[in-house]
Amino acid sequence: RRGEMAKSMQLIDNEVFRAYATYAAIVLLKMMLMSLITAYFRITRKAFANPEDTASFGKGESAKKYLRTDPDVERVRRGHLNDLENIIPFVGIGLLYALSGPELSTALLHFRIFAGARILHTLAYLIPLPQPGRGLSWAVGYSVTFSMAYRVLKTVLLL
Amino acid sequence: RRGEMAKSMQLIDNEVFRAYATYAAIVLLKMMLMSLITAYFRITRKAFANPEDTASFGKGESAKKYLRTDPDVERVRRGHLNDLENIIPFVGIGLLYALSGPELSTALLHFRIFAGARILHTLAYLIPLPQPGRGLSWAVGYSVTFSMAYRVLKTVLLL
Amino acid sequence: RRGEMAKSMQLIDNEVFRAYATYAAIVLLKMMLMSLITAYFRITRKAFANPEDTASFGKGESAKKYLRTDPDVERVRRGHLNDLENIIPFVGIGLLYALSGPELSTALLHFRIFAGARILHTLAYLIPLPQPGRGLSWAVGYSVTFSMAYRVLKTVLLL
Repeated sequence: RRGEMAKSMQLIDNEVFRAYATYAAIVLLKMMLMSLITAYFRITRKAFANPEDTASFGKGESAKKYLRTDPDVERVRRGHLNDLENIIPFVGIGLLYALSGPELSTALLHFRIFAGARILHTLAYLIPLPQPGRGLSWAVGYSVTFSMAYRVLKTVLLL
Repeated sequence: RRGEMAKSMQLIDNEVFRAYATYAAIVLLKMMLMSLITAYFRITRKAFANPEDTASFGKGESAKKYLRTDPDVERVRRGHLNDLENIIPFVGIGLLYALSGPELSTALLHFRIFAGARILHTLAYLIPLPQPGRGLSWAVGYSVTFSMAYRVLKTVLLL
Repeated sequence: RRGEMAKSMQLIDNEVFRAYATYAAIVLLKMMLMSLITAYFRITRKAFANPEDTASFGKGESAKKYLRTDPDVERVRRGHLNDLENIIPFVGIGLLYALSGPELSTALLHFRIFAGARILHTLAYLIPLPQPGRGLSWAVGYSVTFSMAYRVLKTVLLL
């Protein structure tokens, strides 16, 4: 039992891995928050995608009118999909990057800029801010992931 | 060679990590199953998204009518997207959680409840069951991932 | 410091893990490329999803006409979503597979076929190639991930 625990502790004792785990958890929680915001807008705007979700509003035609799209709901959903497209590559490539043995300060720089950029991206999407606010925050996060992927491939390449 | 193998075996010898690997594989396979169900409904409902997919039904207008959305296809696709939004955070946060050294029994409780909740969520979506069946199964899975993220951040926090 | 570095180096010194890291990074970068292709088509086809993205084309009705869907944009977006549905399970299950101690040659075979199949899938989607080109490349990638999941479950099963 002790031995196993010790083994499982090796990665988590590494500072770069701890920093990775912290920021990966933060950006994944931020992504999960989009589900709650979608639910909030679906309920307040009364705009649902499934007939069974509108059953509490009555039967037949009276409920059917709530089966509709709403601009605010669609906006949050686009933000959520953009998170899936960008945060998941960060989590996957970031894990490989953390295992490739970077300096702690360099790793923290990557993780902090990415997390900040994605939080700004969500704010820019939901407020919404005028462009190029959202575009720039997207580009910064994208570049951080690309920079980590470059280091991973340079360090481990085995085709 | 032997040494390398031994090294790669460390994580996989850990019981918590084996439990994680088992449930992560199960929920990812469940998510992949949605692709097959989508294909099944696209073919049986004759509802496709790409012109090249309808070419076998003939040319021109006769094939064009199969370029359409179908309620059953869209329902499976919504279930698939919900899996992406919920199962992927579980797989990412669950890995960090498994490495944070939890008790095996606590970890198994998290993994089993999550897998059960997501299987129920898919059934509730596809049958479909009346609400709040789908809503509750979603909330249970969401809470499990949140509980694991809380433990990860409490254990490793390095900002 | 040295000790930590050494620890973090264990996984990355393993050849199977290096091969996994290489191919996981490649397919995630390929997936990220879809964002750039979407942006390219949105700009050249002048088809945007957010009012704030069309502000540079003027105010009011003159800009509103660019808030529309375009067949080329939607095609890239379907390809991107298909990547999320298939590449992410590969990255998750592939990690567990790499840690389950497979032979390097077997692992490389899986990773190379998957990466090749997904690159073909993107080409088949974007050109587009007549079916069953896209369908077959999808099925090959799907089968590789399934084969890895089978080995993971056979090796680690702990329910």
